[in-house]
Amino acid sequence: MRQAVMHAPGDVRVEDREDPVIIEPTDAIIRLSATCICGSDLWPYRGAEPVEHQVMGHEYVGVVEAIGDEVRTIEVGDFVVGSFWASDNTCEICRAGYQAYCVHRVLMGTIGTQSELARIPLADGTLVATPGMPEPDLIPSLMAASDVLGTGWFAAVAAEAGPGKTVAVVGDGAVGLLGILAAKQLGAERIIAFSRHADRQTLAREFGATDIVEERGENGVAKVKELTDGLGAHSVIEAVGTQEAMMQAIHSTRPGGHVGFVGVSHDVAIPGDELFMAGVHLHGGPAPVRQYLPELIKLIWDRAIDPGKVFDLTLPLDRAAEGYQAMDQRTATKVLLLP
Amino acid sequence: MRQAVMHAPGDVRVEDREDPVIIEPTDAIIRLSATCICGSDLWPYRGAEPVEHQVMGHEYVGVVEAIGDEVRTIEVGDFVVGSFWASDNTCEICRAGYQAYCVHRVLMGTIGTQSELARIPLADGTLVATPGMPEPDLIPSLMAASDVLGTGWFAAVAAEAGPGKTVAVVGDGAVGLLGILAAKQLGAERIIAFSRHADRQTLAREFGATDIVEERGENGVAKVKELTDGLGAHSVIEAVGTQEAMMQAIHSTRPGGHVGFVGVSHDVAIPGDELFMAGVHLHGGPAPVRQYLPELIKLIWDRAIDPGKVFDLTLPLDRAAEGYQAMDQRTATKVLLLP
Repeated sequence: MRQAVMHAPGDVRVEDREDPVIIEPTDAIIRLSATCICGSDLWPYRGAEPVEHQVMGHEYVGVVEAIGDEVRTIEVGDFVVGSFWASDNTCEICRAGYQAYCVHRVLMGTIGTQSELARIPLADGTLVATPGMPEPDLIPSLMAASDVLGTGWFAAVAAEAGPGKTVAVVGDGAVGLLGILAAKQLGAERIIAFSRHADRQTLAREFGATDIVEERGENGVAKVKELTDGLGAHSVIEAVGTQEAMMQAIHSTRPGGHVGFVGVSHDVAIPGDELFMAGVHLHGGPAPVRQYLPELIKLIWDRAIDPGKVFDLTLPLDRAAEGYQAMDQRTATKVLLLP
Repeated sequence: MRQAVMHAPGDVRVEDREDPVIIEPTDAIIRLSATCICGSDLWPYRGAEPVEHQVMGHEYVGVVEAIGDEVRTIEVGDFVVGSFWASDNTCEICRAGYQAYCVHRVLMGTIGTQSELARIPLADGTLVATPGMPEPDLIPSLMAASDVLGTGWFAAVAAEAGPGKTVAVVGDGAVGLLGILAAKQLGAERIIAFSRHADRQTLAREFGATDIVEERGENGVAKVKELTDGLGAHSVIEAVGTQEAMMQAIHSTRPGGHVGFVGVSHDVAIPGDELFMAGVHLHGGPAPVRQYLPELIKLIWDRAIDPGKVFDLTLPLDRAAEGYQAMDQRTATKVLLLP
């Protein structure tokens, strides 16, 4: 099969590799209908994380080709969506809704899903089948559910977005944009998007943003305060992962409000005294996407939401390198790859 | 009147000062029945915060001597308890339960309550009257409600202590001990106290601790994991304010669990990547004690709780300097001062 491998920062190649096989009786093998490039894949691409001859990708949708002897709820031929963490969905942590921390979790990035085929561990716990074979135009949205939508959704839940709430969103990448969509679905009254890019502003408004703030850092905070009687937003989503973004999120939140952070933190240190004086709730980390998949698949299947719009470039898998380049240079927000 | 003044680190004197008077029509003047020394008063005492000829104290109970023209709910002769933040209790932030961030808040520490008399701003919002004149033996407990009990209670609420939960408490000072009492009242199933002092361990058990862990730092974390099937506690209270205590709290919490932190942070920086991977909820800051006062006063009045036990040294106000020394040298946990 063909699979993307990052040999070094900036060097992604699609190569012939051995087909995956069932290893554990709880495994499934899927043939990917789509895969994609994640913002977090750019960290090693840019040299901010070490990388050496590493398989890439952790997002996937596709059709089940084989199952292990102990797989009970997933069948060959099912169209399935899964999260970037494989999880048993039965342990105490999974039952509490934190499948990204399942005691048996497997990081899909170590298996790599920018490929034609992929082995999915803990198939019963990890995979959710759609009601049938999706229309082709639904595939980008189902693909989004695997990570960026699920992550934006978690951020909005962690920020306690809901009726009567003013929500601010730091970051206008795919996750931030889908955080806006999630906040809207959860009933937020007002949604303030921080964005400087005209095309992303347009999508932000389409997904539910009511206000756009172009300022960043403390100037951005001042703008949010201005829009909220000096108090700050009730709920703030942080979908970047830098020090500036984290502090912008904390300072944009009113005392007693909630920050949901899903940007993978790099070189972030939160000053304890500032957090103490801010009086906000802070919650985040790798999203337990599995928790939300049944609900998200239903919303997509019923065409209530169209998160697939975040994909603004589609390429065949073999041209993955171009996709990385486009996201690195910000000529694309999110790249869909078709094996 | 007599009032404690810190001239410099380590130098506390009780001096003759002018009696306070009504300044705003929303003020009240109270005659203190008791006041006390807070763990946070030790930061300037030890030179960790700047101090120069500063009035001290922010905890108070007493009898109303005078009220301003606009005070409606508090009467002369009432026995009252208030928080260390004066608050209007009507603004949007107060109504959301975050009175410590009231848009009109006044820090009582700037007025100083280690004194015979004190001016209380925003009396209607700040003060809660007891059902009548308390029996003398209830005064230490009512005094505790003004800060340490209210703060421990907030920490337990922020940590979402409740039925079925395992709660760990970092810090065995007055706030930590009363965090244990709060967790017990809130229905926690198991309460793990970190403590190395025999007398504090005894009080911890009396307040509801089921397990004592003497190890600190990562050894303490390992012990909590051992007691919780490797998962960590559901709820952790941080009542110290140091880097070690904060990280001990975060690492002792299971993914999806809650850390309630009320130790005034000094030189704490929370690494973003560790917080991201921990997946905990983090909430804390100055406690909105006012929110809990009616409930806490009722529990004390009904003799359902006895938080006054944290006072292990009682001195006349004029001997405040001895009280500071005792707390600094840890020969006392919490000092009650009688004007």
